[in-house]
Amino acid sequence: MAASETGAGGHPFAGDPVFDLHVGGKMEVRSTVALTDPAGLSLAYTPGVARVCEAIAADPEMTQHYTWVPHTVAVITDGTAVLGLGDIGPAAAMPVMEGKAVLFKQFGGVDAVPICLATTDVEEIIATVARLAPSFGGINLEDISAPRCFEIEDRLKAMLDIPVFHDDQHGTAVVALAALQNALRLTGRTPATARVVISGAGAAGVAVARILLEAGVGDIAVVDRQGVLNSRRSDLTPVKKALAVDTGDRHDRHGSLADVMAGADVYIGVSGGSVPEDVVATMAPDAIIFGLANPTPEVLPEVAHRHARVVATGRSDYPNQINNVLAFPGIFRGAFEVHATAITEGMKLAAAEALAGLVGDDLAEDLIIPSPFDPRVGPAVTEAVAAAARADGVARR
Amino acid sequence: MAASETGAGGHPFAGDPVFDLHVGGKMEVRSTVALTDPAGLSLAYTPGVARVCEAIAADPEMTQHYTWVPHTVAVITDGTAVLGLGDIGPAAAMPVMEGKAVLFKQFGGVDAVPICLATTDVEEIIATVARLAPSFGGINLEDISAPRCFEIEDRLKAMLDIPVFHDDQHGTAVVALAALQNALRLTGRTPATARVVISGAGAAGVAVARILLEAGVGDIAVVDRQGVLNSRRSDLTPVKKALAVDTGDRHDRHGSLADVMAGADVYIGVSGGSVPEDVVATMAPDAIIFGLANPTPEVLPEVAHRHARVVATGRSDYPNQINNVLAFPGIFRGAFEVHATAITEGMKLAAAEALAGLVGDDLAEDLIIPSPFDPRVGPAVTEAVAAAARADGVARR
Repeated sequence: MAASETGAGGHPFAGDPVFDLHVGGKMEVRSTVALTDPAGLSLAYTPGVARVCEAIAADPEMTQHYTWVPHTVAVITDGTAVLGLGDIGPAAAMPVMEGKAVLFKQFGGVDAVPICLATTDVEEIIATVARLAPSFGGINLEDISAPRCFEIEDRLKAMLDIPVFHDDQHGTAVVALAALQNALRLTGRTPATARVVISGAGAAGVAVARILLEAGVGDIAVVDRQGVLNSRRSDLTPVKKALAVDTGDRHDRHGSLADVMAGADVYIGVSGGSVPEDVVATMAPDAIIFGLANPTPEVLPEVAHRHARVVATGRSDYPNQINNVLAFPGIFRGAFEVHATAITEGMKLAAAEALAGLVGDDLAEDLIIPSPFDPRVGPAVTEAVAAAARADGVARR
Repeated sequence: MAASETGAGGHPFAGDPVFDLHVGGKMEVRSTVALTDPAGLSLAYTPGVARVCEAIAADPEMTQHYTWVPHTVAVITDGTAVLGLGDIGPAAAMPVMEGKAVLFKQFGGVDAVPICLATTDVEEIIATVARLAPSFGGINLEDISAPRCFEIEDRLKAMLDIPVFHDDQHGTAVVALAALQNALRLTGRTPATARVVISGAGAAGVAVARILLEAGVGDIAVVDRQGVLNSRRSDLTPVKKALAVDTGDRHDRHGSLADVMAGADVYIGVSGGSVPEDVVATMAPDAIIFGLANPTPEVLPEVAHRHARVVATGRSDYPNQINNVLAFPGIFRGAFEVHATAITEGMKLAAAEALAGLVGDDLAEDLIIPSPFDPRVGPAVTEAVAAAARADGVARR
């Protein structure tokens, strides 16, 4: 369709509910002060505003009181790994970043600004984000392809004194851990004894493996397209090599996905692949299967239920949705409430525990994680993260 | 005052009206779509949003329909020339940029995002803004010191296919021209015959001189601290050298401010200096004096009125306020309404004419420019600018 053609509603895809909703985008900027007369103008703008500028110049901490910076996060992408669509570029990534910004406000009361960068160069991305940092209270990296995302996040965390968080890694990891904790409890297991297979060693796979290790899971096999990560392999990136030491090497897990699925207690799919049913069938009794690829889970729930006791997906139309929106709004809100300088491992673990705890006595095979629309979620995560920030010494108030 | 001390209102300067108004900053981001149930979430976010991304990936023009980009401007500074405060850095500049963003929305319905950059390097600023460009429909450069601002704006205009506008230059120039056109009419002069002195050759002075030249003013003397810009001088920057050819050289104006003030019809101060009354007294009968420095005009209105017929300032507490807010919201709104790829000289001149025209038959010594709170201002500037964009061939619709 040519750009000049428009449907009945005045835009090219008029009549399609998704496109109708997207006309004009999904967000706006609003003033929170009145500017209806010269007196208001002289307080909010010149000459009054000059005194606020001078106060911040004299004491940068005043930024925390008198600007929107401490409650505003930049949602930053380079458009290289957008949803399951891959490298579609910065312009096409904007609807997702706007959606993310809307979710930040809706579920965490956090103001968010979508930024899509016209570069995919690691050094340029790092330099650009660092230069933007005075404008924001935190940086949410989004949909940046692996392994570039690891270096970008690590170096920005080292450079900046505000939270830097790659949601595709850590948001997914926090919610997956929360769901897994409840699934283990329901099936009478503990992290220390469960044998876990993670399919996918991209941003989400690496982060899920790392948070499970921190939560005490001792036996993890991470599988990429070439098989189980293990120091026997010579084809690993530095990130995968380090992860192999802490996962496959520990119990000498190796070989193919099918090799490690036999007898496994838990399967977590973050790969977008597909697992044959005869492989699923070899898992331990009362197995736990998380197929998190969207829109098509690695193991379809109908198949998974024939061989597992607890099944979760990334989809809203099945029970047990592993949805990042359960985590990132409250994590940033909690960090912002105490003016945290970073988001620590302790803050992520606290978020997962808070999420898992909300299920409480309702715990059941089809209820291992709360709904994103459960109004207790945001406050519970916020409170837990703020407390953990204080405990970890990264709170500035 | 230490950062931990707070006043009775819970913040360090509690009780001070300016600071009370600034608590928490002056703006927020809001969703324009409902996200109250899973169905809404699946339209605005996954899985629905993926189809919007694919449509934009296939045809980038779809950005104009389905994102907030085409109605959103970045207000970008490096904090080097903030109000009259000078180089106070990016953090301290934020209250002004937030104020600007609020004015954009209030007076133009334009969404604006304040960005304060942690660099003052020209190359880094240009590279950073260029990388941000896919996220915004326009770039408003703000409070960047001269002469760096000229190169930054010129190069970004050449690189980007969205409007780039340095408001300290062009916003001031547009409003000053509008006011001057009416003042000339009131005193029976024409642009071609008026002799004009501009004090200050920074961002505003250069831009005011340039727009007056385009409007047909033939005899302009621009004065910096060393005297009148003229090719006789060997100390000029490239920007001043070029301007000297089109101003001082034409009628061989040279020497000091006092030299060119004798017999001048118009004085426009954008320098922050001060003109002795005995110099003001040498101007032509029915003189026009614009003292635009804030908060202290180059010629105090009380003094100016003893020697001039028309007096304007940058202040809201005197008649004839030359206020950029009369121009920039409507200029960007007009450019955005036609998806303009640039802001041309023709669009600026059209904005000035629209502003001047609003005064109409009410024209008087104390009414040469409309009030920022005149509700006709935004629509009139918007309409004129959009029409000029079409005439100049920079409109995309």
